[in-house]
Amino acid sequence: MARLKCVIAYDGTRFSGYQVQPNQRTVQEELEAALKRMHKGKAIRVTASGRTDAGVHAVGQTIHFDSPLAIPEENWCRALNTLLPDDILIKQAQGVADDFHARFDVSQKEYRYRILNRKEADLFRRFYTYHVPDILDIQAMREATTHIIGTHDFSAFCAAGTQVVDKVRTVYDVRIEQQGDELVIAMVGSGFLYQMVRIAVGNLLAVGQGKAPPAAIAAILETKDRRKAFATAPPQGLYLWEVGYDTDNSHAVNAN
Amino acid sequence: MARLKCVIAYDGTRFSGYQVQPNQRTVQEELEAALKRMHKGKAIRVTASGRTDAGVHAVGQTIHFDSPLAIPEENWCRALNTLLPDDILIKQAQGVADDFHARFDVSQKEYRYRILNRKEADLFRRFYTYHVPDILDIQAMREATTHIIGTHDFSAFCAAGTQVVDKVRTVYDVRIEQQGDELVIAMVGSGFLYQMVRIAVGNLLAVGQGKAPPAAIAAILETKDRRKAFATAPPQGLYLWEVGYDTDNSHAVNAN
Repeated sequence: MARLKCVIAYDGTRFSGYQVQPNQRTVQEELEAALKRMHKGKAIRVTASGRTDAGVHAVGQTIHFDSPLAIPEENWCRALNTLLPDDILIKQAQGVADDFHARFDVSQKEYRYRILNRKEADLFRRFYTYHVPDILDIQAMREATTHIIGTHDFSAFCAAGTQVVDKVRTVYDVRIEQQGDELVIAMVGSGFLYQMVRIAVGNLLAVGQGKAPPAAIAAILETKDRRKAFATAPPQGLYLWEVGYDTDNSHAVNAN
Repeated sequence: MARLKCVIAYDGTRFSGYQVQPNQRTVQEELEAALKRMHKGKAIRVTASGRTDAGVHAVGQTIHFDSPLAIPEENWCRALNTLLPDDILIKQAQGVADDFHARFDVSQKEYRYRILNRKEADLFRRFYTYHVPDILDIQAMREATTHIIGTHDFSAFCAAGTQVVDKVRTVYDVRIEQQGDELVIAMVGSGFLYQMVRIAVGNLLAVGQGKAPPAAIAAILETKDRRKAFATAPPQGLYLWEVGYDTDNSHAVNAN
């Protein structure tokens, strides 16, 4: 048995999220179905760095699985991509140590959120951006990011229903960049709570729209109460961009 | 009865083209279904500037229809958009003279073709661009456009199966522009034969890839033989961008 690590991209539009659910089309189910075909009917279990919700995309999701097949590393991508639907792409595959774990070994994750910031909607980006027609105070939004960066209890930025007890996370960086008619918010952190990035984006947008001053973000986080924060930004703007690992393999996870 | 002219956009991905076909999802069928609901079950026939094929998009398709409803001009867009699926958008609606005709009165059309010109494919633009990973000689492509611009018999650039007899058309302009990692080819003409834009793009790409010199385009057109031309570019890169009319209403068709 050899353990393989793959960097994968997917278009979340037609998936009910990453994780297998009965009677739903999921990324995990498609990956495991392709692996099962490659392995002549033998079930292969895939482990990802974490889940993504319905409609959320990935540019650099990372998975691992074990296989008895003696396939040269460079042929795994092509073999799997041939069997996968056109909304999942294996970008990189490599053999790793048997104790590598796609979820437990994560050292950091980067998410990006694409906001289409112009008056007119764009039919052709409706599944790939969140349309915000308002003029945004980007300087205020950048100031607000300083209250998110750092180690905080992010309970106020965590959707209800999670079973996680410890809600302290470290956000290393939040960057806001204009790219043509889009505003891209990149967040890098040690890990993120359920819907934390989308809630953070919703709160940064509230600041950009003048609904609250930048310092309100610090006050909201201090309440540790989700009900005190602004609304969650919708899923279609969100991309799991890159997953980093503290291993010798970390050079290999540079997506793109 | 009042005649209305509308500028519409659609994402061609999930349509079997513009024109109604039995047991297929088409743009025309969706438009007529929405109008039928607005008119309490009365059938309203829609006429477009022309058809588009499956997978081809529109940013500025133009249609007309007649309605007995006394709805203020500015409310038509909202009323129809509420009833239409999310891959069709009414951008503009206005009352026009009873003899305005969306097809017969066309004075010119502009199509644009988006080529993703970089090594890596982009999952998120697979329905909206044609991926060409080769390094293209854009200067040679621009030189080749000079053989397309003008009045020519475009038989060599017309797909088989058309019933049109006169294959002489006038192309006013062909522009090739780099926009980030995309190459956009815009063609403006008096009218276009079946698949003419996609065949023209396929031939310009052949020149860009060094398969033929720019002058070969003139020679291919002179043969008047489709079999002498290079392959047709795929539908998903093509956008019907704007339809122009030689009427007092022509100012109103500026899409975007």
